Amino acid sequence: MKPIKIAIAGPRGRMGREAVGLVHQTEHFALVAVIDRKYDGKDLAELDGFSGIHAPIYTDIERCFQETKPDVLIDLTTPESGKYHTELALQYGVRPVVGTTGFTEDDIERLTKLAEEKGIGAIIAPNFAIGAILMMKFAQMAAKYFHDVEIIELHHDQKLDAPSGTAAKTAQLIADVRPPKKQGHPDEKETLQGARGAEYDGIRIHSVRLPGFVAHQEVIFGGNGQALTIRHDSFHRGSFMSGVKLSVETVMKLQTLVYGLEHIIE
Amino acid sequence: MKPIKIAIAGPRGRMGREAVGLVHQTEHFALVAVIDRKYDGKDLAELDGFSGIHAPIYTDIERCFQETKPDVLIDLTTPESGKYHTELALQYGVRPVVGTTGFTEDDIERLTKLAEEKGIGAIIAPNFAIGAILMMKFAQMAAKYFHDVEIIELHHDQKLDAPSGTAAKTAQLIADVRPPKKQGHPDEKETLQGARGAEYDGIRIHSVRLPGFVAHQEVIFGGNGQALTIRHDSFHRGSFMSGVKLSVETVMKLQTLVYGLEHIIE
Amino acid sequence: MKPIKIAIAGPRGRMGREAVGLVHQTEHFALVAVIDRKYDGKDLAELDGFSGIHAPIYTDIERCFQETKPDVLIDLTTPESGKYHTELALQYGVRPVVGTTGFTEDDIERLTKLAEEKGIGAIIAPNFAIGAILMMKFAQMAAKYFHDVEIIELHHDQKLDAPSGTAAKTAQLIADVRPPKKQGHPDEKETLQGARGAEYDGIRIHSVRLPGFVAHQEVIFGGNGQALTIRHDSFHRGSFMSGVKLSVETVMKLQTLVYGLEHIIE
Amino acid sequence: MKPIKIAIAGPRGRMGREAVGLVHQTEHFALVAVIDRKYDGKDLAELDGFSGIHAPIYTDIERCFQETKPDVLIDLTTPESGKYHTELALQYGVRPVVGTTGFTEDDIERLTKLAEEKGIGAIIAPNFAIGAILMMKFAQMAAKYFHDVEIIELHHDQKLDAPSGTAAKTAQLIADVRPPKKQGHPDEKETLQGARGAEYDGIRIHSVRLPGFVAHQEVIFGGNGQALTIRHDSFHRGSFMSGVKLSVETVMKLQTLVYGLEHIIE
Repeated sequence: MKPIKIAIAGPRGRMGREAVGLVHQTEHFALVAVIDRKYDGKDLAELDGFSGIHAPIYTDIERCFQETKPDVLIDLTTPESGKYHTELALQYGVRPVVGTTGFTEDDIERLTKLAEEKGIGAIIAPNFAIGAILMMKFAQMAAKYFHDVEIIELHHDQKLDAPSGTAAKTAQLIADVRPPKKQGHPDEKETLQGARGAEYDGIRIHSVRLPGFVAHQEVIFGGNGQALTIRHDSFHRGSFMSGVKLSVETVMKLQTLVYGLEHIIE
Repeated sequence: MKPIKIAIAGPRGRMGREAVGLVHQTEHFALVAVIDRKYDGKDLAELDGFSGIHAPIYTDIERCFQETKPDVLIDLTTPESGKYHTELALQYGVRPVVGTTGFTEDDIERLTKLAEEKGIGAIIAPNFAIGAILMMKFAQMAAKYFHDVEIIELHHDQKLDAPSGTAAKTAQLIADVRPPKKQGHPDEKETLQGARGAEYDGIRIHSVRLPGFVAHQEVIFGGNGQALTIRHDSFHRGSFMSGVKLSVETVMKLQTLVYGLEHIIE
Repeated sequence: MKPIKIAIAGPRGRMGREAVGLVHQTEHFALVAVIDRKYDGKDLAELDGFSGIHAPIYTDIERCFQETKPDVLIDLTTPESGKYHTELALQYGVRPVVGTTGFTEDDIERLTKLAEEKGIGAIIAPNFAIGAILMMKFAQMAAKYFHDVEIIELHHDQKLDAPSGTAAKTAQLIADVRPPKKQGHPDEKETLQGARGAEYDGIRIHSVRLPGFVAHQEVIFGGNGQALTIRHDSFHRGSFMSGVKLSVETVMKLQTLVYGLEHIIE
Repeated sequence: MKPIKIAIAGPRGRMGREAVGLVHQTEHFALVAVIDRKYDGKDLAELDGFSGIHAPIYTDIERCFQETKPDVLIDLTTPESGKYHTELALQYGVRPVVGTTGFTEDDIERLTKLAEEKGIGAIIAPNFAIGAILMMKFAQMAAKYFHDVEIIELHHDQKLDAPSGTAAKTAQLIADVRPPKKQGHPDEKETLQGARGAEYDGIRIHSVRLPGFVAHQEVIFGGNGQALTIRHDSFHRGSFMSGVKLSVETVMKLQTLVYGLEHIIE
């Protein structure tokens, strides 16, 4: 079997570095090029932290596609670059696997049409952590049988917003399938304001911020005499790489664009 | 909507008492009779612990079916009685919901044929705790993406066997879908024998026995930089009642026999 | 060794029933009488749920003390009765072990003086669950080394107030020893109000209310690269009995009144 | 207040790098020198990963002490070097804070005598994670009240030995204070060998090995109707630095040698 030829855009970012390592270490993957804002014409191995990993650096993505003819583009850049790269990749017949956010519904519609015209796959995923995707999927499934649920998410204390995006997304996925319900005792009262957490469609969300933690979430369902808890722990950003790997393998078999890893996980 | 007419066999057992309470409290359920080894002809309300819950007691199940014409039989007796009751119920056109074990594959085949001939449903479930069923289902789904998994089950210290039946079943469901894998470091060694737990097809199982605990299980998946944990806590036997309720509602719509609650949960 | 002679006030309440069982089953304890609002002169064994447990029932506590001369009174009644019984017990030279709340500082002072005059022990404990007491004690100890801490408490959804008394008490014990600190990022912001929970002196408290749960609490400390979690689970009210037993044994050796089980636990 | 003058031996090891960072970032600490096997006479800032952190490098520890006169030596080298450095430090009046293992009882006795002769402090600690020390301390305290306990430790799957040193130490500390007890049902039986884990003096220990995990331990106590759990998570080796910091501050006030961080934590 020939290896899948991969170009990576954004190799020097945190996620990009992990992706370079992933592609380098995976037997049936081959790193054919990287796209960077700088260092055009150099070898990646010359840069700090990439010793022994050879790949030509391009600042011009079109020339990269023309000369190295990758099967897949892994894009871990910024929302603006990501959108631009995705469109160009599809036009050149390169399957994009994109980890940036900021795509509008219009963008998705237009890019899907383009992927289908070209007859190739594309995957855009705001979250590549398979464990987090499974947690959300299981939470939605469980909510059909357990209508009482609370979410606790724990992050490091440098995080600015509460609740986390994943917690809000989980609550929304649950709200989509369970009958509307205001949980807790109808007459419950907070003697200290905020004790019962935030509310999203009757579901309570609690955000813990403590040094030492990374990114963790528990979805707790309660029923008569029982509890069902689904927990995801992200200990470091390597957690995203299993999703990138799965996406590269899957995108080769698609003839359309898929938005969200939950749609390629059964 | 007319309520579902229900007869309960084994009303004085631990599970039976819970089931009587459930049927009594559920608006669209009606308790039309109970089947007991004793007290023929009495009213259930006369027995200890059932005050206010009226239903005729039968020792003869056939006479019970003839006189009270239940839609559903909930059987929470013994393996022997359960098998006998299931067969009789189907012959009388009563849909059985059975919580006993001990059915052979031959039994299931024969009873399935009978249910289909009669064109009615039947549900036999060794475990009615929906949370435990979901835990097993989710564990099997996650095992496709995470091949490293260990199971910790915690029970009260009066339990004789280790690991629990649910832990063994979970390990088997996981082994059915993941590629064979011997986990842990190839050269790992126990300085105290048994530290790494029991092994089932490369999966490690750990059994905790402590006073105070009831029945709990964690399935822990580990991957690059992340962990996914699915936990079920059974705090008291009321945890089985949500599954009994779901089964009664579902059995009314079936035209065949279903073995195992996992097959009626999506 | 002669058994400790015990009278129990409030034997038919939930806690009282557990205490009767405890005293009955403990070899070096002897149940010599019970004090109830009703059934004067009957034998406890005649009442529902006490078969085989013999003890005379008194409605008059003074006559009970005079006739049965108990070493210890276990009082599990109401705040009003509890206060009255405690005083009478001390006057009659009976050591009170009291599980009711509602004692003022003045009450405690007066009763302490009385205990010391009589040269006997007395224990008043709003919480008899030794595990909960230890959790609070450990939390206070850990707070000297970890200044970042959040509390999550989980109770059944019939509980009216949030946070729980134990959570508030824990936060106060922590606040007593750690330097004042406002936790979390100075610029953190709630996109859903209440996400960060209640605040007590900079400590965040989160109250989960779900069916199936009983009474549980986690105190989570975070530090550089690490977390320390102390969790107490109360699965049923039997959890209080180890504290009652310890109190009966300890009160025999005291010559003063102790308020709070934390003061007899090292 | 003058800063504490600190020399670090082993600055290029994993722990050493963390310690350099700690000293550099702590206001009342001053890094006056490092001791390395190589690079004599260079500036630490010239080495990879230390840019901006200036300190002279010595290969000769005695010359280092003579020329830079540190208050404290932090030694994070090897058992052999650690022992040698500790002795020399004491002779030169430099307080050692040592993180290596391999000291015999004789070594400790001899070094303690030397520290007391010199009238200065010394701290040797096999484990600097304060959270882990507290977990062990709390476990020992709780074991006086809860005699049933099991230990679950979770580590990455590259760890070779099971159970972990911390788990074994915890079990020993518990065994020191609780009455001897063989836990579990007397007639319990393993249907899969090893399910009940390893045994240490009647205490069961379970070792989980999964990718993604770092170093975690739970000590679970069970009693009538309740459970008490103490858990420590070490997410990365920064967890050791709070203990190094505390040791440096404490060693300045001691006039003897302390072995084990548990003795300077109240």
